Amino acid sequence: MATLADVAARAGCSLATASRALTRSGAVSESMVRRVTKAAAELGYRVPASTSGANSRRRAVVGVLIPSITNPVFATSVSVIQNRMLVAGHRVLIALSNYDPAQEADAIATLLSERPTGLILTLCDPSAELPIAGDMPHVVLMNNRPTERFPAAVTADNHAAGFAITRHLIEHGHRAILFVSGSFAASDRARRRYDGYLAMMAQAGLAPLKALEVGFGDYDGLDLGEALRIAEPTAIIASNDLLALGVIGALRREGLTVPGDLSVAGFDGIAIGRMINPVLTTIEMPDVSMGAAAASLLLDIAENDAAPRHLEIPFSLRTGGTVRTI
Amino acid sequence: MATLADVAARAGCSLATASRALTRSGAVSESMVRRVTKAAAELGYRVPASTSGANSRRRAVVGVLIPSITNPVFATSVSVIQNRMLVAGHRVLIALSNYDPAQEADAIATLLSERPTGLILTLCDPSAELPIAGDMPHVVLMNNRPTERFPAAVTADNHAAGFAITRHLIEHGHRAILFVSGSFAASDRARRRYDGYLAMMAQAGLAPLKALEVGFGDYDGLDLGEALRIAEPTAIIASNDLLALGVIGALRREGLTVPGDLSVAGFDGIAIGRMINPVLTTIEMPDVSMGAAAASLLLDIAENDAAPRHLEIPFSLRTGGTVRTI
Repeated sequence: MATLADVAARAGCSLATASRALTRSGAVSESMVRRVTKAAAELGYRVPASTSGANSRRRAVVGVLIPSITNPVFATSVSVIQNRMLVAGHRVLIALSNYDPAQEADAIATLLSERPTGLILTLCDPSAELPIAGDMPHVVLMNNRPTERFPAAVTADNHAAGFAITRHLIEHGHRAILFVSGSFAASDRARRRYDGYLAMMAQAGLAPLKALEVGFGDYDGLDLGEALRIAEPTAIIASNDLLALGVIGALRREGLTVPGDLSVAGFDGIAIGRMINPVLTTIEMPDVSMGAAAASLLLDIAENDAAPRHLEIPFSLRTGGTVRTI
Repeated sequence: MATLADVAARAGCSLATASRALTRSGAVSESMVRRVTKAAAELGYRVPASTSGANSRRRAVVGVLIPSITNPVFATSVSVIQNRMLVAGHRVLIALSNYDPAQEADAIATLLSERPTGLILTLCDPSAELPIAGDMPHVVLMNNRPTERFPAAVTADNHAAGFAITRHLIEHGHRAILFVSGSFAASDRARRRYDGYLAMMAQAGLAPLKALEVGFGDYDGLDLGEALRIAEPTAIIASNDLLALGVIGALRREGLTVPGDLSVAGFDGIAIGRMINPVLTTIEMPDVSMGAAAASLLLDIAENDAAPRHLEIPFSLRTGGTVRTI
């Protein structure tokens, strides 16, 4: 009987290409498919059922969508999700949106094409039209709150977090507080944190400064010179810790020290913020609890037909050394 | 004609569960499968071909295996791979090994079950038996060198990197140099860097100190007290930058400053190492070039039947402020 090697030899291609052409899996040109199919027909070769894909036993897979792996804020949650899912007999596959709504829809479609047990999604924009069928179990993680389309959600109160960190700075005597943020369009979390800042500034009778939006990924090599000259802030709130580290670097390049010349605070509580000197003042988000809750909720929905629900996990303020009283 | 909703109602479960039971996709108990199948049979319901999975058009997917997303060293490469693959019409799915050989084999099997175009793998142990068929295009990324099983590889010379950073410290007057490392068993990169350290120490006629191995993930809250008292080093080489940041934090908790009391150097060149003050002295690995080369090589093998080959990309030494002359 003809083997795959015979087919490959007759078609003049590698074993790998012959296999992909016959199972229509992966990248292979249409002309190659024709050449290999012709060779297989001439040799009477049949694709074994076990390798044709359609009959292979599938593993239970959970899809996780995150914006980026450059920001370690998602790392802990994903690790916790992976460990929970491993115990439950599910494997985790991760796709990235790069904070881009078009890539986000595409990444979700890719995860869906793997026929997962369910999805855990940290979205750029939960109000966007996304290709998720109603019968696919899914949980939104770290976005602001559940929506009609995404009723199962594990979140923290980003508005309250923005309010709390702004109050902390005001209590330390700051009045001119600049909010530096990743693009609001790409993160509803950043937007809500800024709304919390605006609310606290209003409550304290202070004039908010115009937020400075920077692209995600532009944190390293950030230029704050113009913003500092125009707004003359005494403190900067960054919409996440990674950006706060970028802000501290940018201030250093301007010849300014933290907290001597300016105070800086962030959000998230990434590990690196505790390693720097002084330790970063920030809102610690409950990444371990959120990841664990999202995994449990998804399994509950997928395996026990539980109704979608909303879990809000409390955050905490970490007083580091990057904020001083003025 | 009966609908899926009718089947779900009769079986007393959700649409999602009925769908999963009928397509055997995702998590659903055997008893539920029997209940739903019975209900479907009673109602004469048939699963439409388009949702039965076997006939659905598949997207071209490339699988990427990395040890962890907690260490940002993999973030840049993965982003570059994702962008390259997007242009080539392939989506990227990521799986994590958590630096655990058992999870590594399982993660590879999961990626393979998605029938990808090919795999890009950063392995714990490239000599391990892994479930990769010979006809699946794959490229090893960042491991030390190609092996018989993994002939396509994009690497940097970790031995030379360990040699170079050790020479840099020796040139600055250091003689007692401690190598602190993530587990050698989980990273052949760390092991090769240490071998380079040993080679340079021998060439300089210096006695190497016993390496201090710590678990991956134990970087935050690291205790160096005992190692410092026993070895009395004047400089520490950490096997990667994330660990170097952990070492700097641990030294600070011991009341020691960097580089005043001890010099510290790392490997990788992660962005955060440039944001801290002083900037971390390190070996900058060519993460962008390596990611791009791995993506191109995989596509060349998968689409053009190119022979597997080995690309070694040069690294560079970044002189920061964490090493001083003694």
